[in-house]
Amino acid sequence: MSRILLSHGAGGREMADLIRQVFRGHYAQADVSQDDSAIVTLGGVNLAFTTDAFVVSPLFFPGGDIGRLAVAGTVNDLLTAAARPVALAASFILEEGFPIPTLERLTDSMQQTAAEAGVSIVTGDTKVVPRGSADQVFITTTGLGVVLRPGVSGAAARPRDRVILTGPVGDHGAAVMLARENLLQGSPIVSDAAPLNDIVLALLEAGVEVHALRDPTRGGLAATLNEIAGQSQTAIEIQEGLIPVRPAVAAVCEALGLDPLTVANEGKMVIIIAPEDADRALELIRGRRYGQEARIIGEVLPGPAGRVQVRTVLGTSRLLEMPSGELLPRIC
Amino acid sequence: MSRILLSHGAGGREMADLIRQVFRGHYAQADVSQDDSAIVTLGGVNLAFTTDAFVVSPLFFPGGDIGRLAVAGTVNDLLTAAARPVALAASFILEEGFPIPTLERLTDSMQQTAAEAGVSIVTGDTKVVPRGSADQVFITTTGLGVVLRPGVSGAAARPRDRVILTGPVGDHGAAVMLARENLLQGSPIVSDAAPLNDIVLALLEAGVEVHALRDPTRGGLAATLNEIAGQSQTAIEIQEGLIPVRPAVAAVCEALGLDPLTVANEGKMVIIIAPEDADRALELIRGRRYGQEARIIGEVLPGPAGRVQVRTVLGTSRLLEMPSGELLPRIC
Repeated sequence: MSRILLSHGAGGREMADLIRQVFRGHYAQADVSQDDSAIVTLGGVNLAFTTDAFVVSPLFFPGGDIGRLAVAGTVNDLLTAAARPVALAASFILEEGFPIPTLERLTDSMQQTAAEAGVSIVTGDTKVVPRGSADQVFITTTGLGVVLRPGVSGAAARPRDRVILTGPVGDHGAAVMLARENLLQGSPIVSDAAPLNDIVLALLEAGVEVHALRDPTRGGLAATLNEIAGQSQTAIEIQEGLIPVRPAVAAVCEALGLDPLTVANEGKMVIIIAPEDADRALELIRGRRYGQEARIIGEVLPGPAGRVQVRTVLGTSRLLEMPSGELLPRIC
Repeated sequence: MSRILLSHGAGGREMADLIRQVFRGHYAQADVSQDDSAIVTLGGVNLAFTTDAFVVSPLFFPGGDIGRLAVAGTVNDLLTAAARPVALAASFILEEGFPIPTLERLTDSMQQTAAEAGVSIVTGDTKVVPRGSADQVFITTTGLGVVLRPGVSGAAARPRDRVILTGPVGDHGAAVMLARENLLQGSPIVSDAAPLNDIVLALLEAGVEVHALRDPTRGGLAATLNEIAGQSQTAIEIQEGLIPVRPAVAAVCEALGLDPLTVANEGKMVIIIAPEDADRALELIRGRRYGQEARIIGEVLPGPAGRVQVRTVLGTSRLLEMPSGELLPRIC
């Protein structure tokens, strides 16, 4: 590896390699979290702390915009640590000439999404770079939350746990792709970008035994399940026939040669849960706005460690690998 | 205002207007901090929380690089809340084609600066954008700290307080400018980029009565003093003859028509302190690595509210206004 490639930002194998080589390799190693949020304990309080840069193109797409994404994405990353999201910081890099009314639409959208998620945007920063040094606007949001249940982590998945997926996959990636290419205008595909506090906090309050939570964003469900299997040294088997994919999304993926299991979602959660609590959890999730199409899609197995397999509708089994290659640049 | 101008990112009047109109106007108003760090109280612990995007060009300059800047800048912003810096999140936006060895130099520099400041980089994010969509690399760091003394704020300056400046002004801005334009190679001007935990924590531990802390970055000393005078509804008078400026920096500013009081610093602190503690504080600061050239440069007056004046060496007085205009784009 000598130069950054688009694949280094795609959420798959190359990004994992870059993180291992450059970031884990050069920062004080033990400190860098393998989960989406780090846990910082201060004054006896366990805090979740997470950051994400948003560079999506176009800025507006059916179902959302970069502002909604920036808030929902960071809220969801806090939730993966079983934390109650509390506060956000929002840092803007603006290209000279960017229209201020557009910036106001984005800050409105951020505020609405923050209100929906019950968090406050408490601090921020603004940098402006000359025309051509950045493309319109990039937003980095960083979140702070209070961990409600310690130990929820990709590393905590156990054999026999059930895998719940809170809804259909691929909506966000397909919506952004179509918007970018001006394809299929008027198609029913809209991004799922949404904060999932409602679902996750309900589960934690109900006391169901959640072991791992992760939102399948870049690299899609495939990357998320591979990360969890790798961290927990388990295998995961999912049932192809149980994974919801909207027909329009399936058609777009088919046409573009994409596997919907590798396409980004921005309003979904993968929930790894003790088998005895899975049905109760599913019922709770389905009663929430963004969880009505939730399903149990598979199960954690003892091994082989790190392996993810899909049982097809024909009863055969295929390996679901960590995605690699460019996938979809600037999807979030 | 209809489009973003470079001046909207320059730390002066236009940036203040943008923040007021767009950010304070569209976020839930009362939540957005007027200090460099927001204070978030969680589980009875007061946390300082701050974010900054770094877009400096060039990436490497005498005395530092974007990595050192990204760590020191955020550490210093935490310190302005009288907080002990604890953890950082680092988010990268990389341009396709960026050399990975350069990225490794930057992460090394970040780690060294973090170690110097006693903080850990605990979480991060990486996005890659296609060639031409960003210029090389932008880094957003967000910091978390524990407030050691509540109430330290630009709003807390009081008449008769002394104004301490921890060293000469203008080094960072002058160093970056010369590096960018390839001027005066071999000049003695180096950036002051440094984390100031050593100075600020020593003051807090010694129990001296600090009222306000602020690092004079974009917009320089002029912007910082105007912000403090505005927040606290006091006036501030500084003595021109007491403000240290290195001769080489003064010469560069003279040649380029810049006022060194408006040029960015990245390793200086303005400390507003009760008069009875000023001498003791000064002695403590001068005993620290980055504070050897500290000086008492002025005093807080009862009014007129928001006014900053400079008493010249000739004994006359001039208004030091909030800077405006482009100043130096991409200085941090």
